[in-house]
Formats: sequence, structure tokens, C-alpha cells
Amino acid sequence: MDFDPTTHSHRRLNPLTGEHILVSPHRTKRPWLGQVEPPQSPSLPRYDPQCYLCPGNARSGGQKNAAYDSTFVFENDFAAVLPPPGPAAPPAPHPLLTTEPVQGGCDVLCFHPRHDLTLARLALPDIEKVIAEWVNVYRRRGAQEHVKYVQIFENKGAIMGCSNPHPHGQVWSLSTVPSIPAAELTNLRQYSLSTTAASSAPTGPKGRPCLLCEYVHYELTVPESEGRIVVKNEHWVALVPWWATWPFEIMLLPHHRHVPSLAHLAPAEKASFADALSRVTKRYDNLFSCSFAYSMGMHQRPTPPGAAQTADETAADEENIAHLHLHFAPPLLRSASVRKFLVGFELMAEAQRDLTPEQAAARLRGCSEVHYLDAIGKE
Amino acid sequence: MDFDPTTHSHRRLNPLTGEHILVSPHRTKRPWLGQVEPPQSPSLPRYDPQCYLCPGNARSGGQKNAAYDSTFVFENDFAAVLPPPGPAAPPAPHPLLTTEPVQGGCDVLCFHPRHDLTLARLALPDIEKVIAEWVNVYRRRGAQEHVKYVQIFENKGAIMGCSNPHPHGQVWSLSTVPSIPAAELTNLRQYSLSTTAASSAPTGPKGRPCLLCEYVHYELTVPESEGRIVVKNEHWVALVPWWATWPFEIMLLPHHRHVPSLAHLAPAEKASFADALSRVTKRYDNLFSCSFAYSMGMHQRPTPPGAAQTADETAADEENIAHLHLHFAPPLLRSASVRKFLVGFELMAEAQRDLTPEQAAARLRGCSEVHYLDAIGKE
Ligand SMILES: [Zn+2]
Ligand SMILES: [Zn+2]
Repeated sequence: MDFDPTTHSHRRLNPLTGEHILVSPHRTKRPWLGQVEPPQSPSLPRYDPQCYLCPGNARSGGQKNAAYDSTFVFENDFAAVLPPPGPAAPPAPHPLLTTEPVQGGCDVLCFHPRHDLTLARLALPDIEKVIAEWVNVYRRRGAQEHVKYVQIFENKGAIMGCSNPHPHGQVWSLSTVPSIPAAELTNLRQYSLSTTAASSAPTGPKGRPCLLCEYVHYELTVPESEGRIVVKNEHWVALVPWWATWPFEIMLLPHHRHVPSLAHLAPAEKASFADALSRVTKRYDNLFSCSFAYSMGMHQRPTPPGAAQTADETAADEENIAHLHLHFAPPLLRSASVRKFLVGFELMAEAQRDLTPEQAAARLRGCSEVHYLDAIGKE
Repeated sequence: MDFDPTTHSHRRLNPLTGEHILVSPHRTKRPWLGQVEPPQSPSLPRYDPQCYLCPGNARSGGQKNAAYDSTFVFENDFAAVLPPPGPAAPPAPHPLLTTEPVQGGCDVLCFHPRHDLTLARLALPDIEKVIAEWVNVYRRRGAQEHVKYVQIFENKGAIMGCSNPHPHGQVWSLSTVPSIPAAELTNLRQYSLSTTAASSAPTGPKGRPCLLCEYVHYELTVPESEGRIVVKNEHWVALVPWWATWPFEIMLLPHHRHVPSLAHLAPAEKASFADALSRVTKRYDNLFSCSFAYSMGMHQRPTPPGAAQTADETAADEENIAHLHLHFAPPLLRSASVRKFLVGFELMAEAQRDLTPEQAAARLRGCSEVHYLDAIGKE
């Protein structure tokens, strides 16, 4: 009996986190348990007087938004972390009960003044403005002496708990590297010291191997029809990773060279970043003909270049082991209304999926790059 | 300025997983954003002819349930893993793309014939029957040669994606130790080898320190009003751990001695396990006057005692480093209808909470141990 990844249950290792995912491909044959609902009909106004993100509106903190006409950044009125100074850590009552004070700041980034748009429906120049704003906030927050990590993310869709559809993301800047990027950095560092045979992939600082350069280089050699790549352009690749947890999870990253952070992107790389983002989000919306919900998170270099801490070149090299990448974690599974829940065995033991990453990539490759709402207008 | 854990944002380390949780207690003062809904009125029938778990009913796989009158176990008709034999792993096309075949079996455990009950509303003798069934399945599956880990869990409530309210749990038995219990075992092992000063807490194999024996021993010394303990009896403690992720997360574990697994429980310990389970789930239901949704998972010793692999005494000691405990992960935050979402920053960077574990424990301690549905009848 030969092993067939679409038939036999198996585990795949996520080398970024060190955790496994249990794949149960035979279960895709089980009877349909969810319900099917008609595609959502989008009926959002271009401007919502009740929306605290629309231009000119008042927020619950009392402040008023600018009458902005492209992107707009403001500090979250109810930030999860506050700027320094703060008190020192108290003594631990027991070695198992340690406390580490955290400082920083939380920003909200409106992608566009129009309430009814999303990244998938923005024109490329508008997406480039969002990218420019990400670069700005990464540099500005990263230059603050107490900031060690700038976490850029977007949480989109009511089923993700995001009640406001106005296109926006968030940026939390912290005096500490959060657990997940910290684990990834540890694994990237370990890989860079490993003796894995060199390929012709790009390399990280000091010519040492980069886990993500290596991985994406390998994926580019797999014939498209068998592989995991969804979107590819001159500088960027979007793929369903070998170790994907979410049914249609995507990792978006530069493939042509080792890029530690947003601040390292050349103008041409930013333009093709916009192209890749647009194509990925359009395919997502087209998959189930709905505004596709997801959490997106960007992982990159801690404390950006230019900050005081990076004057030491060796330290900078060490931090440059990071390879810029975006994770998209969408919960939808079979239709606009049937979602995956990360509960039970997955919350208590190990992530699990039925559909293989290769099957998910094939589904996404089969989607159009013309947004379904625009396609309707054109037919 | 003194550090105040109810005012200043900070991180706490989860020593079981090695991950941190970001606590933002000042945010509990932010304006109310969720809605309040009236308590659900339970109107489930004692028997539902459409339920695939009720006694005597047919399941979608075609089989028929026994006309059971206490607990009932059957093999899941659409199991996530299948019994051996299976094919060997294929060669990895690249060191980053490894495949590990997984075998095993998935069982469903009905807690009670009545469709309208839950653990919170079962009489103690009925909960003892559930515990006896857990012990049985742990022993039976653990004795299978290919099984390395028996993961017992319960996923309860529609907001957890569990569409069937019939009281039941699941047991997935695998040829591998899943990621989360594996990480916990690594950290328990590391702690047992550490030189942390000895306390008067119980110890693990060979008199070495046990992380959980130590932790729970410390928690028992904290004055109740400042502490994290919710329920306590002769053998068991339920507490909101120092590092809790979910608003009302609870860890339930034996405190009086090191207990590696269900198979190590003495009869008196099983009886007080039932008492603790009953009191925890009643408090949960009373918190927001609803049938409280949660995922519960039990972590314990891999490959149960008695299985062939444990003949070697040193190996057995090594495995006995596990300390039996249950995690309860409930999503509700402020009412029967306002939940926490683990998305955005939490999915991409680090778990985060506003309410401190101490505040959550105080709320749960303030709840009655008479179930609200029974209290109504008695007034
Ligand atoms: Zn990452
Ligand atoms: Zn555990």
C-alpha cells in the first residue's frame, strides 16, 4: 500500500512554530453536515454616519476623525498597552508566577475613506497607499526607544468578531516580542545555524540559510498543478503552506531575495506587494462569492533598522534573520456560511484539517482574479 | 508608582506551554460594546427522535445506538484517524516537508440517555459513571499497541460549533503524542530536572519536583479572597490559572498527591472528582444563567500503564512525570451572548485578556453551587 496524502491521515510539522497539524483527508468524504446559504448581498453605504472610522465622524473616546481622503492613522482610544513610564515588575511570589510589565501603543489604520470597500476592491494605487502607511508606522513606532516589536494585523468580518466593516487594520507596538513571532524567530535562527544542504535559494545574513527563502524556493520548483502556490509575481508568492492550519490559509512573502522587514522593500517590491495583495484578496472573495473573513498578521524583523538598538552590526545581522511574511487565517470552510471552529481536539491537543493544503490551493487557483461584484457589472 | 496587576498591562508566562499571555486590565474600564440578551430559555425534549446520540436512534453511518440507560460509547463513524495497518511515510521531497503517518481511533462517549441534560445537571452517581467510562476508554485504547496518547475532550455549545446538545464527549486515540500535551510534557520534564528550591508540595517520580504539584500547592497558600481557586475538595482543586487565556478558563487537578493518569485514581479520588466536576459546571452555568459553552480537554500520561511499552520501569517513571489535569476553555466574556474571539493580535502574535484571572476567579466564587434551573423550582 502506497502512502497517498489525499487518503491517509498524517501529521505535518510547522517548522516556523514547531507544532504539528493532523491531516485527515479521508474525512472530506463524510456526508454534508453544514447548511448552504445564498451569497451575502452587499448593501453597505459609501458613508455611514454611525461608523467611528468614517471620515469626519466622532469616536466613542470623544475625538473626531480627520476628513481623510486616502489612509488615516490614529491611536486606539482603548489601547491594549500604554506608553511608558510604567512601574517596575513586582517580585514574583513563586517562580511559577512571574510578571513582566509591557508598554507600547496601539494604532488603527483606516485603509480608505469609503465604508463599503475592502482590500479586495481597492485599486492598486490605493493598496500602495496602505503599504506606504504600514511602512510609515513600522518605522515610526520602531524608532520609539521602548518598542521591540511592531505587530501589524487586520481582522476582517463579523464571524471574526469584527463588527465594523469599514476597511481598516491595527498595529500594536510592544516593549516585548510576542510569543508567536518570538517562536518563529527562534526557529528561523536555529535553521540558519543548521547544516542543511545548500540549495540555490537566496540566503539570509552572512550567507546563512533562511528557512523561508529555502521553503519558498522549493515550492517554486513544484509543478503548478500539484503544488501549493496560489499567486505569484516577480517578487512575491502566495501559497497554502505545507503545514497550513486553516482550510484556506495563505502565507504571502517575497521569494526573490531575503527581505527582513517592510523597511527593506524597494519601490518595485512594494508595487508587486500591492499586486499580490489585490490578487489574493480577490480570489478569497470569489471562492464563496462573499466578502471573505480572515485575520491577517505580518511577521518581520523586531525593532526596525534605524532604531538606537541596532547600531551594533552583529546584533542587526541577528535580527535580520527575520523574513517578512504575511499569514492569512480565514475561518470559512465550505461556503459563505459554513466555517471551521478551532475547538475541542484542536484547542486541547493539536490543529487538525480534512481538506489537504494542495486541494485548498487548487480551489483557490481555480478562482478568478476579477472580483465577483465587478464581474456581475461586466456581464 | 507601584505595580498594580488590575491597572498595569503585563505579561504572564504559561509554564506548561512556554507561551505568554498579555494582560490589559485597564481595558476593563472601556465602554460597553457588546449587547445584552435575555438568558436562553432551555426547551429541549428529554428525547429527540432526530438526535443521532439519543438511545435507540440511527446514526448517519447507518448503525443504531443501543437503548442505553447510563453511558454509551461507540466508534465515531467519521473518525479523524483510522486503525492500522497503514502505509509507511513517503520520502520527504525537502527536509521542510515531512510527513508522519498517524493511526488510531475516535470514540464518542454519551454521558447520559437524556437529551436535555449536561454534566452540570447530572446527579453525582451519574457523573461517577462518566468518570468510570473515561477510565475504561483510557485503559482500553491505551492497551492497543499502536496507541501512544488518549485525548479525552468535550466540546459543548453551539457557539463552539457543537450543533448537538446531547451530553457527550469524544476520545481520540493516536499513534503519536499531540503537539499541546507534548509541549506540556517537555516542560514538566524540564521542571522536574530543575533545581528550584523544594517546598512541602507533593513530588513526582523519584521525589523530583512536579510543576503542577508545586503550582497548586502554592495556590492553596494564597488567602481565598485574593487567590485564583474556585472550587476545592479533599483531593481536587479548580482554579483560574495565573496564565489563563480564556476569560473564565479553569484548570481542574488533584492537589493532594502526584496523579499521572485516570488509571492511577483511587475510588475516593474518583468520587471527589465527580464532586468537583459537578460544582465547576454548576458555577459555570450560573455565571450568566445559561448552559455555559466550553471546550474541555484532559491531559495525562501517554500510553497508559499496563501497555506493553511501559514494562521498563525507568521509561514508566519518565512517562509518570505527567500530572492529570483538565482544561476548561469557555468563550463567554460578559453575558450569555457576549463572547471573546481569539483572532487578530491573538491569532497572529500572543494571547491577550482584559479581565485578570483573579477577577475571573472572584466572579466564579460568587456564583451559587445550586443550578439556576433548580433554584427557580425551589423558590
Ligand atoms: Zn510568521
Ligand atoms: Zn494540560
